[in-house]
Amino acid sequence: MSYTCFDVEIADGVAHVKMNRPEKRNAMIAAFWEELPRIVRDIDENSKARVIVLSSTGPVFSAGIDVGMFQDIGGAKDKNAPQYGASFYIDVKRLQASLSSLENCRIPVLTAIQGGCYGGGVDLITACDMRYGTADSFITIYEINVGMTADVGTFPRILNHMPEGIVRELAYTGRKMGAEECKSRGLFNEVYADHETMMSAVMDMAREIASKPPLAVYGCKRAITYSRDHSTADALDNIAIWNMSMLIPSEMMEAMMAGKQKRAGNFKDLPPVETKKA
Amino acid sequence: MSYTCFDVEIADGVAHVKMNRPEKRNAMIAAFWEELPRIVRDIDENSKARVIVLSSTGPVFSAGIDVGMFQDIGGAKDKNAPQYGASFYIDVKRLQASLSSLENCRIPVLTAIQGGCYGGGVDLITACDMRYGTADSFITIYEINVGMTADVGTFPRILNHMPEGIVRELAYTGRKMGAEECKSRGLFNEVYADHETMMSAVMDMAREIASKPPLAVYGCKRAITYSRDHSTADALDNIAIWNMSMLIPSEMMEAMMAGKQKRAGNFKDLPPVETKKA
Amino acid sequence: MSYTCFDVEIADGVAHVKMNRPEKRNAMIAAFWEELPRIVRDIDENSKARVIVLSSTGPVFSAGIDVGMFQDIGGAKDKNAPQYGASFYIDVKRLQASLSSLENCRIPVLTAIQGGCYGGGVDLITACDMRYGTADSFITIYEINVGMTADVGTFPRILNHMPEGIVRELAYTGRKMGAEECKSRGLFNEVYADHETMMSAVMDMAREIASKPPLAVYGCKRAITYSRDHSTADALDNIAIWNMSMLIPSEMMEAMMAGKQKRAGNFKDLPPVETKKA
Amino acid sequence: MSYTCFDVEIADGVAHVKMNRPEKRNAMIAAFWEELPRIVRDIDENSKARVIVLSSTGPVFSAGIDVGMFQDIGGAKDKNAPQYGASFYIDVKRLQASLSSLENCRIPVLTAIQGGCYGGGVDLITACDMRYGTADSFITIYEINVGMTADVGTFPRILNHMPEGIVRELAYTGRKMGAEECKSRGLFNEVYADHETMMSAVMDMAREIASKPPLAVYGCKRAITYSRDHSTADALDNIAIWNMSMLIPSEMMEAMMAGKQKRAGNFKDLPPVETKKA
Amino acid sequence: MSYTCFDVEIADGVAHVKMNRPEKRNAMIAAFWEELPRIVRDIDENSKARVIVLSSTGPVFSAGIDVGMFQDIGGAKDKNAPQYGASFYIDVKRLQASLSSLENCRIPVLTAIQGGCYGGGVDLITACDMRYGTADSFITIYEINVGMTADVGTFPRILNHMPEGIVRELAYTGRKMGAEECKSRGLFNEVYADHETMMSAVMDMAREIASKPPLAVYGCKRAITYSRDHSTADALDNIAIWNMSMLIPSEMMEAMMAGKQKRAGNFKDLPPVETKKA
Amino acid sequence: MSYTCFDVEIADGVAHVKMNRPEKRNAMIAAFWEELPRIVRDIDENSKARVIVLSSTGPVFSAGIDVGMFQDIGGAKDKNAPQYGASFYIDVKRLQASLSSLENCRIPVLTAIQGGCYGGGVDLITACDMRYGTADSFITIYEINVGMTADVGTFPRILNHMPEGIVRELAYTGRKMGAEECKSRGLFNEVYADHETMMSAVMDMAREIASKPPLAVYGCKRAITYSRDHSTADALDNIAIWNMSMLIPSEMMEAMMAGKQKRAGNFKDLPPVETKKA
Repeated sequence: MSYTCFDVEIADGVAHVKMNRPEKRNAMIAAFWEELPRIVRDIDENSKARVIVLSSTGPVFSAGIDVGMFQDIGGAKDKNAPQYGASFYIDVKRLQASLSSLENCRIPVLTAIQGGCYGGGVDLITACDMRYGTADSFITIYEINVGMTADVGTFPRILNHMPEGIVRELAYTGRKMGAEECKSRGLFNEVYADHETMMSAVMDMAREIASKPPLAVYGCKRAITYSRDHSTADALDNIAIWNMSMLIPSEMMEAMMAGKQKRAGNFKDLPPVETKKA
Repeated sequence: MSYTCFDVEIADGVAHVKMNRPEKRNAMIAAFWEELPRIVRDIDENSKARVIVLSSTGPVFSAGIDVGMFQDIGGAKDKNAPQYGASFYIDVKRLQASLSSLENCRIPVLTAIQGGCYGGGVDLITACDMRYGTADSFITIYEINVGMTADVGTFPRILNHMPEGIVRELAYTGRKMGAEECKSRGLFNEVYADHETMMSAVMDMAREIASKPPLAVYGCKRAITYSRDHSTADALDNIAIWNMSMLIPSEMMEAMMAGKQKRAGNFKDLPPVETKKA
Repeated sequence: MSYTCFDVEIADGVAHVKMNRPEKRNAMIAAFWEELPRIVRDIDENSKARVIVLSSTGPVFSAGIDVGMFQDIGGAKDKNAPQYGASFYIDVKRLQASLSSLENCRIPVLTAIQGGCYGGGVDLITACDMRYGTADSFITIYEINVGMTADVGTFPRILNHMPEGIVRELAYTGRKMGAEECKSRGLFNEVYADHETMMSAVMDMAREIASKPPLAVYGCKRAITYSRDHSTADALDNIAIWNMSMLIPSEMMEAMMAGKQKRAGNFKDLPPVETKKA
Repeated sequence: MSYTCFDVEIADGVAHVKMNRPEKRNAMIAAFWEELPRIVRDIDENSKARVIVLSSTGPVFSAGIDVGMFQDIGGAKDKNAPQYGASFYIDVKRLQASLSSLENCRIPVLTAIQGGCYGGGVDLITACDMRYGTADSFITIYEINVGMTADVGTFPRILNHMPEGIVRELAYTGRKMGAEECKSRGLFNEVYADHETMMSAVMDMAREIASKPPLAVYGCKRAITYSRDHSTADALDNIAIWNMSMLIPSEMMEAMMAGKQKRAGNFKDLPPVETKKA
Repeated sequence: MSYTCFDVEIADGVAHVKMNRPEKRNAMIAAFWEELPRIVRDIDENSKARVIVLSSTGPVFSAGIDVGMFQDIGGAKDKNAPQYGASFYIDVKRLQASLSSLENCRIPVLTAIQGGCYGGGVDLITACDMRYGTADSFITIYEINVGMTADVGTFPRILNHMPEGIVRELAYTGRKMGAEECKSRGLFNEVYADHETMMSAVMDMAREIASKPPLAVYGCKRAITYSRDHSTADALDNIAIWNMSMLIPSEMMEAMMAGKQKRAGNFKDLPPVETKKA
Repeated sequence: MSYTCFDVEIADGVAHVKMNRPEKRNAMIAAFWEELPRIVRDIDENSKARVIVLSSTGPVFSAGIDVGMFQDIGGAKDKNAPQYGASFYIDVKRLQASLSSLENCRIPVLTAIQGGCYGGGVDLITACDMRYGTADSFITIYEINVGMTADVGTFPRILNHMPEGIVRELAYTGRKMGAEECKSRGLFNEVYADHETMMSAVMDMAREIASKPPLAVYGCKRAITYSRDHSTADALDNIAIWNMSMLIPSEMMEAMMAGKQKRAGNFKDLPPVETKKA
């Protein structure tokens, strides 16, 4: 399958999803928002891979939402039109759902960031599981510079990655925050000298995760997301119930044997979702 | 369009969705679960009607989930199979989403119940906005009689319709609760002598709601659902923000004028969702 | 002190707050919204009474928000004006805060309803502790008839008074619900033959509540409001902590002695708030 | 085993727990609070019965907390003593935990109320699953009459049984509410002519519940309690996860066969908790 | 206007609020708690500035709550006095509300800290949007050293600024934490060599924020505060609704043009609140 | 008293709880899970100490849950057995409760970590108040390597100690994270050169905390735990209510006098829980 904004390669259980419009600074045009969840669901629901790596090329990781899209959102130029608000709501919810597909799929999504990551690009990376950057990468909650309040997911998620006071400074000033500061503040897990080094390390990590038992990885992803949004008591109870049926003796046995024998484990893929539809 | 389990008629802004397998006691077979959300979304997202009425014919409103489906859920007979739990989860979430389409759509759903409403049928009616019944109708949280705990939505929703102690008795005993008790306990809004009287009254009410400004009706549906699941403080704040853009002077003016002139108002439909997709 | 929209009389520990514009159907004009919280706070914070009774006279208990106010809300006719939304938000929050003063004060507020109670009037009575009506009284969530979604507090609160399905029907149709139905559905505590009978009964009850230990009554009001918006576990913990300092041996002793001796207890008023300001 | 405040009889899967101090109006003395959770846990954790019926005899179902206990709570007469608050907190939490054992055990608890139910007795019955009363029974949130705010569980739970306005009236006035009003307001499920009729009906119902599959009944109890305290979305997800391992094919098969053959099903008891301790 | 504890200067859209009692170590006396919210509201509600900078001079940024105030809180020496608890509650809620004015106002509050910041001073700075310190500044959750549990806001807020384990150590030991550790742990955004350097940098940043579109900055402040206290799903929905009316085409256009033309944008102030009062 | 898995020494108000099976890598066998809460409750409820230090010896701080226990959990090898899920749930809840005793007791728990901390060991340390490590210590969320999703408490708690992206990486890869990274990411408060240096520093800090007023320390522990799981508004209100009875003038006076006189304060122990049982 081919896409306007992405190239997708799958190997060794890892789906590498690359933004492919570096000459357009990988701006998030209408096709971007529509293709991203379609790609993620195709990989996840058909169990085509066990991990996703989201990367980009060129001087800009992502220029953020394409300015041309503003004219479409809300579907009416006149905010007094009866349908303006209801149309706007539909549109923004769809944009949010596009990025939330990264959080809601069953498999981890690693993202590798080079160069600038602007506005909507920050929404994008905060919805991924982990973030890695090159030494020259930076992020900016750019919306303030174009008179907007970020609305596709930055604030609901970034507070889990960085202290509140840092988030506020970035949001009010729109200033750039470089890779090292992104790492020391919690947003990035690691910083690499250049793009090649980063991609090599991130792909290695992705392959390693793909070698782990997929059901257990899925359980971790779900438990972390759940814990983030619930009280300690609720999260403890939830994981106890989950594991009533999700601790799989045969998978555990295989994991332990493989560990002892220093070989890769042979684990079942997650069950596909698509084929189960009536 | 034609469906296996439903007939759909649209007139006067009201979509009448009728379960059409009375000879099979309107059991909820696989096609039922797949068609229901498709129908609801088609009506809602294409703004084909402003209200939905869900009804049935025959001696049984709904026999609940079809027993044959149990064999499919989870996709494996062996609960020790690694994928059993994950498959089961996919399946139940899909069933839940099917009924939640009634709650999540933007327009009210009235349901008119005759005869028996069993098990999954109770899940179905609790996800509707309002419930009306004939004098000989009854409900039963039947699952306990087949060794199950109701799981497609009864308990999360029915506690908003009836006192907790009544719900517990129904759940533990699986006993039938007749129409009058359903009304006095809060589950039914009204009881009618027979099916014809009920359908006449419910369709009248549906047409009346369809004559109201759709944006305001949508706002009410959303605010009630939101209020049910949030604190008073959160709900107050939420409706204030919603109305920042959802109080439409032209619609208000038309509503007032129509009221004064004792004529039907001329209001805009909700904006379609489908055509806005990229 | 004199007010445009209210008469206030205090006797026997009961502040009787009467809407005094029956000829204007007690429409909620700008002065209404400003005076109500001022009156409530004056009574509560200066410990002038231990209970408030809110009543009205004339054929209409309350006609709801005065139509003239719509022109002011948002402070700009053009919804495209940069400040429209922010101004609207300020205005609606102020209206909400006006009614919430009834819920947030430390003493119970009983309301006695005769005739029609429209729109904003429903917001008003749902923010009171208890509601009583005459046989000919009725309520209507009237907003839908003027193209609005009720926004000053109806939905966040009324779901605690009536089953969800009834609320939805009232909201979507704007129909009148008579006193007896208000009682059987939970909104009204009692229905009386006429205004005089109602006022006599409600004032008697108010005086009885005023004879109870004010700190214990305050504790009940707070615990009920808190319980409504929190989980059972949180509410149990909260009341345990509250009573660490709020069970007063001298008040309990006096209550028991007074009970035995069949005389009125001699209890301390709540401490005034005003005089404690720096 | 013998207890100071209770007689316990187990037959047909039903544990009948009777308060046995009618001559003392079944006042809740220190032994009451200690014995109740011990009895409930013994029955539940050792799987001695599948349902509990809590009843009483004499003119008073429960006189509420024994006045003598007030002197002990907090363990110090001087509220200025450093340890007063911390001791009081320990004591009230223990009282709360005593009653919460009824809610937290895995099996349903039905309670049959005759005569007066005062103060702490209301805390007691609201923690049960269902409430049934004789025609001459009544309840009173009596605490206000002795200068207290109810603190062992009335408010956190009773709002799920009755409309908020009724609860407030009962709490502020301390008035008695008779059996028929208890039923029409939601607190009681049914009212019976006299004690014998009630006990016969309640024991019949208890035996019927005991004949249902215990795991499914347990699932219902848990799901209802969970749903009461969580949002619809959370409750839907939780029951889906629970049923991943709690739908038991063999139990379902037996339930359906027994139903067809009009015989009692042969179901497994819940697994005992005690014997599992390390 | 002149104040006992503060000097206020407004220039370039920035209100500089300086604690002016260095010789008293800027102890938070009664006047402090009363003046602070009055100043903040005056600036915010009358739209006098777009950013607040809170600073101090002398060897101690803030000595915390003045010891003399303890005698007043609760208004009675005898904790057995019936009104003690209720009075104490009023007093502490007022202190909390004083500091919460910094969080609840619509504009960002930056604070610049030199020297020691003790006890109540930590409550103060955690309620600000961002914190900056000199190299010799430090904080201490000092309350433990005077036998108290911090109660005006430290714990509810500081957990959003620092890992839980660090907060616990500071709370239990009352030790000082120096500026560099404050920065590396997340509490401070930046550390400067001396007071002059800090003030210059902080005022520069404040002026830059004041040059951004005020509605968008307000939207960010609100969205971050909201996101902190709500689930991801709730926060995503909330910002979508907010932006239905808060994305202002004219402001966005001006922001983009100003950016292109490398000039300051010409944006509307927030609408004043005061003048809207009835 | 003597234990299989622990040595307990109490001196200077500090209970030193040492894992004593270094030759078995301090694996968490059945006795471990049963003894830990018994020890913690004995110390806390009998007020035997004011602080707990949890440490270990040997090359491995904790090898995590003993593999032998897996066979017991759920009490049946056949996951199709009707009781499997219910038994598993009982077992996991008991394991969770064992570790939660550290969080729920009234006194701080410091833990000092040397060498490797694996799987269940991470659950253990995240339930403590503060974590300190030797330079050669490391942690690993090891469960993924044996085909499991961590279920005894890692995810519900560790997100309060470290940024979400780091947690996800550790969970999915099972990699080791060394002491310095543990510190810079927030999990460890401090890193020491070797075991002796660490124990000396941690015991010093424990003794210092033990010298503080126990009621105030208890208040801090409770307020921090409460704040972590509730909104800012709820947490502010809760601490205000707590301190109504928990600010103790005599303790505050003694704390201030002791501070002035540079001597240890003489504070009351927490009231014992055990002796209060009926």
